[in-house]
Amino acid sequence: MTIDQRFGLNRSVLLPGPLLLDSGAALAPVTIAYETYGTLNADRSNAVLVCHALTGDQYVMSTHPLTGKPGWWTRMVGPGKPVDPTRHFIICSNVLGSCLGTTGPATIDPATGEPYAMQFPVITIRDMVRAQALLLDHLGIARLYAVIGGSMGGMQALCWPATLPDRVAAAVVIASTARHSAQNIAFHEVGRQAIMADPNWRDGNYYAAGEPPSAGLAVARMAAHITYLSEQGLTEKFGRRLQARPDSPEGTKSFGFDADFQVESYLRHQGMSFTNRFDANSYLYITRALDYFDLADDFNGRLSDAFRATRARFCVISFDSDWLYPTADSKAIVRALNASGAPASFVELSAPFGHDSFLLDTPELNRVVDGFLRAGGL
Amino acid sequence: MTIDQRFGLNRSVLLPGPLLLDSGAALAPVTIAYETYGTLNADRSNAVLVCHALTGDQYVMSTHPLTGKPGWWTRMVGPGKPVDPTRHFIICSNVLGSCLGTTGPATIDPATGEPYAMQFPVITIRDMVRAQALLLDHLGIARLYAVIGGSMGGMQALCWPATLPDRVAAAVVIASTARHSAQNIAFHEVGRQAIMADPNWRDGNYYAAGEPPSAGLAVARMAAHITYLSEQGLTEKFGRRLQARPDSPEGTKSFGFDADFQVESYLRHQGMSFTNRFDANSYLYITRALDYFDLADDFNGRLSDAFRATRARFCVISFDSDWLYPTADSKAIVRALNASGAPASFVELSAPFGHDSFLLDTPELNRVVDGFLRAGGL
Repeated sequence: MTIDQRFGLNRSVLLPGPLLLDSGAALAPVTIAYETYGTLNADRSNAVLVCHALTGDQYVMSTHPLTGKPGWWTRMVGPGKPVDPTRHFIICSNVLGSCLGTTGPATIDPATGEPYAMQFPVITIRDMVRAQALLLDHLGIARLYAVIGGSMGGMQALCWPATLPDRVAAAVVIASTARHSAQNIAFHEVGRQAIMADPNWRDGNYYAAGEPPSAGLAVARMAAHITYLSEQGLTEKFGRRLQARPDSPEGTKSFGFDADFQVESYLRHQGMSFTNRFDANSYLYITRALDYFDLADDFNGRLSDAFRATRARFCVISFDSDWLYPTADSKAIVRALNASGAPASFVELSAPFGHDSFLLDTPELNRVVDGFLRAGGL
Repeated sequence: MTIDQRFGLNRSVLLPGPLLLDSGAALAPVTIAYETYGTLNADRSNAVLVCHALTGDQYVMSTHPLTGKPGWWTRMVGPGKPVDPTRHFIICSNVLGSCLGTTGPATIDPATGEPYAMQFPVITIRDMVRAQALLLDHLGIARLYAVIGGSMGGMQALCWPATLPDRVAAAVVIASTARHSAQNIAFHEVGRQAIMADPNWRDGNYYAAGEPPSAGLAVARMAAHITYLSEQGLTEKFGRRLQARPDSPEGTKSFGFDADFQVESYLRHQGMSFTNRFDANSYLYITRALDYFDLADDFNGRLSDAFRATRARFCVISFDSDWLYPTADSKAIVRALNASGAPASFVELSAPFGHDSFLLDTPELNRVVDGFLRAGGL
C-alpha cells in the first residue's frame, strides 16, 4: 500500500481553477492549505469537513506553526471526541482569502508578480464553500458524511447543503447565523476602519515595506474580541480587578493611562498577539465576506428555499450567552429548515462564555454533536 | 435691577482654585464654561443642575456653537418640559476634562504656557462634581433643588448626594450605573487604543501640529456609538439595507470596501463628524474617569454607605433595551438606596433605542421625571 501524499498534516494543493466567484471575478490558480486526520474508508463515506471561523485556520487538532499553541478545536476534534479520526476522515482547510497558506490577499498575483493586496477579489462565504469543494474533488471525495463549524464555520456548514445539495449528508451549525445583522456589520466596519486608518496599511500595499498595519489590526481584534465574550463572562473573569504592580500586589489605580484593569491588559494582549499570526488584508476580506452573508439572498430572499434541494440532516446549536449570533438567529434557521421539510434538530445550550462557548469547555455541546453525528451511522 | 452677569448663555468663569482631585493632584486655576436658563428665585431654592454625558456639553437647550445643532436635551429641558426655565433655574456646565470651554487637556497649563495634553491630571466623576460645586459657590447657590443626568450625567447625579450630601435635595439618575463593568471598560479601552495608535496623536502633543488624531478618534467614536444603540434599533433603522448609488437606487453590493450598507455609512459619518467637535485627549480623560467610576470604592466597597449622609430623594430610571448600562445596574443602585433608607423611586421603561433612549423620543421618561421633580414642590 502506498501512502497517499494528498492526505496528512500540513498539506497544500495548487489547483488550476478557475474558481468562479460570486463577484463575477475568477481566481486561477488557487492554492488550498489543509490538513487531514484519520483514514478515508473504502467507500469514501466517512469524510467530515471542519470549517473554521474568521481568524481560525486548518490546524484544528495540530500545533499552530506560528503560535505553537495546540489545535483550535481539540475539544471537539480528536480521538474519543465527537469528530474522531479513529472513525472519521477529517478535513480542515484554510478558507479562501485567509493567510495560512490558502490563496488570499497576501498571495502573489500571477498576473503582476506582486501580492494581490486590495486587487484580490471580494469573496463570499459561498466562494469559500466552492473552494472547499474543489479540494474535495482533489481528494476524491464526492460526498461528505458531515460538515461542521461554529461561527463563520457554521455559515459555511449552512451554505454547503444550500450550494452543493448532493455532496453533504449532514450539517452541524453552531453559534452561527444565516445573515449578518446591522450590529454585526457595524462591529466589523469599526475593525476595517481601524485597519484602514493605520498609515502602515498604505491602501493595502504594505507587504514590501515590512511594516504591516499592526496597530490598526490590533484595535480591530480588540473590538471584535469583546463581541466574542459575554458581559457575564467578562465580569466573572476580570470584573474591575486591577493589575498587580511591583509595589502593589492587589493593584492600584495609576491615575494614568497604563492598563490599570486586568481586562485592559487582556484585551491589549489579545490585540497584539493576533497581529503576529494574521494578515490585515485577510481580516478586511473575511469580515467583508461575513457582512455580505445572507443565505436567503441567493434564493430570492426566502431562506427555506435554500434547503429545498438537499436531503441533508441539520443540527443547529446556539448558546444562551451569545450576543453576537444570539439564539434568535439560530431559531430563524430552524424555522426555515422546518418550512423546507429538512430534518433539523435544534438546541440552545446554557454556557457562560458568550459566542466563544463553542470553542470552550461546554460538555453538553459535545454530547449533542456526538449524538447527531452517530445518528448518521458512523 | 441690575443684570447678574454670572447668569445666562455662553458663560465662563475663571476660578482660582485650587481644585483638589482624587488623584492627589490639584488644578489652579480652573475655568468652567456653563449656561443658565430661567431665573433664580428669591430664596435660591429652584436651581436644577443638568449633567451631561461623555461627549455632551453645556448647550443643553441652546444651539451648539460648532455644529449649529439644537441643544442636546431639548426634549427634557425647556419651557413646558420637566426641567422648565419658567419654574427652575437651570445650570449646565461643561465637565472638567472636556473641551467646550472648561479646563481640560487642551487648556494652556499656566506652569508651562503649553497645552496640558497628557500632563493634565487624570480626573474622576467625583472631581467633575467638585468642579460643579465650585461653580455653584460662584453662582451663590448653596443647595440644588435637583441634579439630573443620563449616562455619565447620571453618574454625576448619583455622585452628588454622596459627595455633597447637604447640597442637593433630589437626584434623577437615568440610564446609568454605579460602576463601570469589565465590558464597559473594554469598549473604552478599544477607543483609547484607537486614538493612541493614530500617529497624529503624538503622545498627546498634537495641538501645535494642527493635525489632530481624527482617524483614531473617529474609530473610537464608531465603536462607542454601537454600544449606545440596541441591536433591535439598528435592525429597524438600517437592517441590511444597501446604500443607494447613482446607477442603483436600491443599492447593490459593490464587491469592494466602500460603505455598501447604510449602517456602515451611518457609522462612518458618526465617527467623522464627531472629530469636528471633540478633542481626542478629552476623550481619553473622560473615558478614564468613567472606567474609574465605582461609587462604592469611596465607601469601603459598600454602595449603600454612599447614601447614608444625604436626605436627598432619588429617581432611578433604566431602559429595557439599554445593554451599555442595563437595568440590572440601576437595580443595584436602587438596592443600595433602599438599604440606606433613602427615598427612591425606580422604573424600567420600555424603549427601542438602547442606551440613547434617554436622549430620544420617550414620552414616558418625561412623565416620570416631571412627576418626580414636581413632588419636591417646584
